[in-house]
Amino acid sequence: MDESVTDEVRALAVRARAAARHLALEPRARKDAALEAMAGALLGAREEVLRANGEDLARAEQAGTPANILDRLRLTDERLAQMAQGLRDVAGLPDPVGEVVRGSTLANGLELRQVRVPFGVVGMIYEARPNVTADAAGICLKSGNAVLLRGSSSARSSNAAVVRVLREAAADSGLPADVVQLVPAESRDSVTALMRARGLVDVLVPRGGAGLIRSVVEGSTVPVIETGVGNCHVYVDAGADLDRALAIVLNAKTHRTSVCNAAESLLVHEAVAEVFVPRVVEALQSAGVTVHGDGRFLAQDGVVAATDDDWGTEYLSLDISARVVAGLDEAVDHIHRHGTGHSDAIVTEDQSAARRFVAAVDSAAVLVNASTRFTDGGEFGFGAEIGISTQKLHARGPMGLPEMTTTKYVVTGDGHVR
Amino acid sequence: MDESVTDEVRALAVRARAAARHLALEPRARKDAALEAMAGALLGAREEVLRANGEDLARAEQAGTPANILDRLRLTDERLAQMAQGLRDVAGLPDPVGEVVRGSTLANGLELRQVRVPFGVVGMIYEARPNVTADAAGICLKSGNAVLLRGSSSARSSNAAVVRVLREAAADSGLPADVVQLVPAESRDSVTALMRARGLVDVLVPRGGAGLIRSVVEGSTVPVIETGVGNCHVYVDAGADLDRALAIVLNAKTHRTSVCNAAESLLVHEAVAEVFVPRVVEALQSAGVTVHGDGRFLAQDGVVAATDDDWGTEYLSLDISARVVAGLDEAVDHIHRHGTGHSDAIVTEDQSAARRFVAAVDSAAVLVNASTRFTDGGEFGFGAEIGISTQKLHARGPMGLPEMTTTKYVVTGDGHVR
Repeated sequence: MDESVTDEVRALAVRARAAARHLALEPRARKDAALEAMAGALLGAREEVLRANGEDLARAEQAGTPANILDRLRLTDERLAQMAQGLRDVAGLPDPVGEVVRGSTLANGLELRQVRVPFGVVGMIYEARPNVTADAAGICLKSGNAVLLRGSSSARSSNAAVVRVLREAAADSGLPADVVQLVPAESRDSVTALMRARGLVDVLVPRGGAGLIRSVVEGSTVPVIETGVGNCHVYVDAGADLDRALAIVLNAKTHRTSVCNAAESLLVHEAVAEVFVPRVVEALQSAGVTVHGDGRFLAQDGVVAATDDDWGTEYLSLDISARVVAGLDEAVDHIHRHGTGHSDAIVTEDQSAARRFVAAVDSAAVLVNASTRFTDGGEFGFGAEIGISTQKLHARGPMGLPEMTTTKYVVTGDGHVR
Repeated sequence: MDESVTDEVRALAVRARAAARHLALEPRARKDAALEAMAGALLGAREEVLRANGEDLARAEQAGTPANILDRLRLTDERLAQMAQGLRDVAGLPDPVGEVVRGSTLANGLELRQVRVPFGVVGMIYEARPNVTADAAGICLKSGNAVLLRGSSSARSSNAAVVRVLREAAADSGLPADVVQLVPAESRDSVTALMRARGLVDVLVPRGGAGLIRSVVEGSTVPVIETGVGNCHVYVDAGADLDRALAIVLNAKTHRTSVCNAAESLLVHEAVAEVFVPRVVEALQSAGVTVHGDGRFLAQDGVVAATDDDWGTEYLSLDISARVVAGLDEAVDHIHRHGTGHSDAIVTEDQSAARRFVAAVDSAAVLVNASTRFTDGGEFGFGAEIGISTQKLHARGPMGLPEMTTTKYVVTGDGHVR
């Protein structure tokens, strides 16, 4: 074992493994009962949790934390109710464990089944929001995994209170309390230890800013599921219905700006540029959006000149980069050069163009005549989402419960030998 | 980009990406025609390939390479015919690209499809055998991936000849020659460069000894599919049919010893130990197997004392470790402590015991009344196998064509906005 795995994290992981072995054998009913108990316990512990959250908030205020970060850190009665409801929603979802993914009887009579089973121990590394603590615990428990939660140091009191409540509810339901454990957040050492605990931790899911995710991806020997940065594009084709195009661009950009599936870049086919560019610029500006454009867009009042950096920027704000392209191929090239492989949309009534765009664009989600905002576990009907993967290995796009499992082959014979 | 990515590997990867973009859009018929052309070209270039292989063999002999390694390095008419047949077999398999894995129409009318697509660029790092060069190229091409082949330096002339032939056949079939490229094997730098070419190479598949695989897993920032070391167990339960047990133990140990799905360890329930231990020791010894046993096994003539190291050893030879256990739970604990999560078998007629073993053992394949030797892409009916994954992320167990793909979500609407 890597020497950067601290004794503390090693001990937590060993306990998680034992709990995971136990949890893997539990039927759905036991897991759902525990999730319901956790939801009830969280509401019952309202005062304790809000008091702990108050400590975090007071510390953060003293440290001069900006208001938007304070808001992410804050728990309220409404947010607690959402956390509880989230746990109940997960209880209502089908159990992915035991699902037969593939099965056949071989020519020699051997029965082959590929069956979903839990990973074992999942490590979550995440920032600020304490509601992720309950969400991740619920999704991991339902998918049969023990979880090691390494939240932000700024939320340490809130996380400790939430985890204490969840562990007690798990134990009251007859599960090992160690299915949910909090990893101390006092220093970065515990992040490094999780990243190097290969063989003890089965998979790591980092959630947070680009810097956090990059450092986990680059430094980890434990397999990682990368969740994503989204530099999402809307391409308005020559064959677009321009009313639809306008509605989709506005929605994708302005419906919610701080999320990874918001549009950050607009590409317009030159055949419709003369009509569409003035319309879309006016509509975006009316909605408070700053347009960072090149040549054709710059001719409009109020458009600021795009620099080379703009094409690769995930603004997460009321800004959009915009460019006129000579055609679909140039749009696809632009997306491949500057995109992050998250969500990219084409607006067109031209069936061949739609088909070509869908085939050529190599992203987790490719949308036709729909806003990029639809790339979301909730919108896709998954019921719960642990993040949106922008990697190609294992899971790509919104990740629900099945993505938090692996499979095993079960081979049953009658004394078969080769 | 990481500075350990050499200019040479970067240039190869950039060309591979361009070729992959092209290949992803090709229909099955074009890919199958190229595979058939490659098979024909390989047979047509018999003399060139065997002459190049002769150079490798001469170099290896001069360097005092042991006979078994020389044998792995050697190409013959028979092996060339197998390589060509392998390419034709892959042409005959269904195309995984385009398969709809999941699909639904959402409440708002959006059509959601999860569709298999190629990874893009696959890096293969492998040892000795030049036949892997053609096998990997065929599987990657059929699954729509461009491949960067980094074979062993000892096989460099053979690999260069094979790759030259395959590239020419690809180009003659109208595909970019760069769908198959050889990465120079003169120094370790090219391995490091592949491992750090995140963003240019989509996935790495190391095939070879435990040392190679560990170094790739630990040093790579490119996602890795680990192929496996197999310390496989056969557990003979109290409820076993002992004739079947004997046949399975013998087959799993002696059918072929140098492979990862051969049994390396035997666990016997104490209730049948008195009858079974003498029988199995005699049968194994008659087949030339050295039994490394503890207490109950040591009482038999010729059994050597097992050390603690034996339980974790993948012998890949006519050796087996053997122990009597108090029951199924002790067998499962032993397997979790010492196994590698490859293939583990139970022999029993007791339905409850089989069910418990299957649920509790966390391995890529769990077998009931069947030899561990069945864990194999060919035996599973996959038609082609790029390796056997012992990791839990993305692919676990034998990997065929579908495992060499990722998916994308295609979302089709009518101007849908949120």
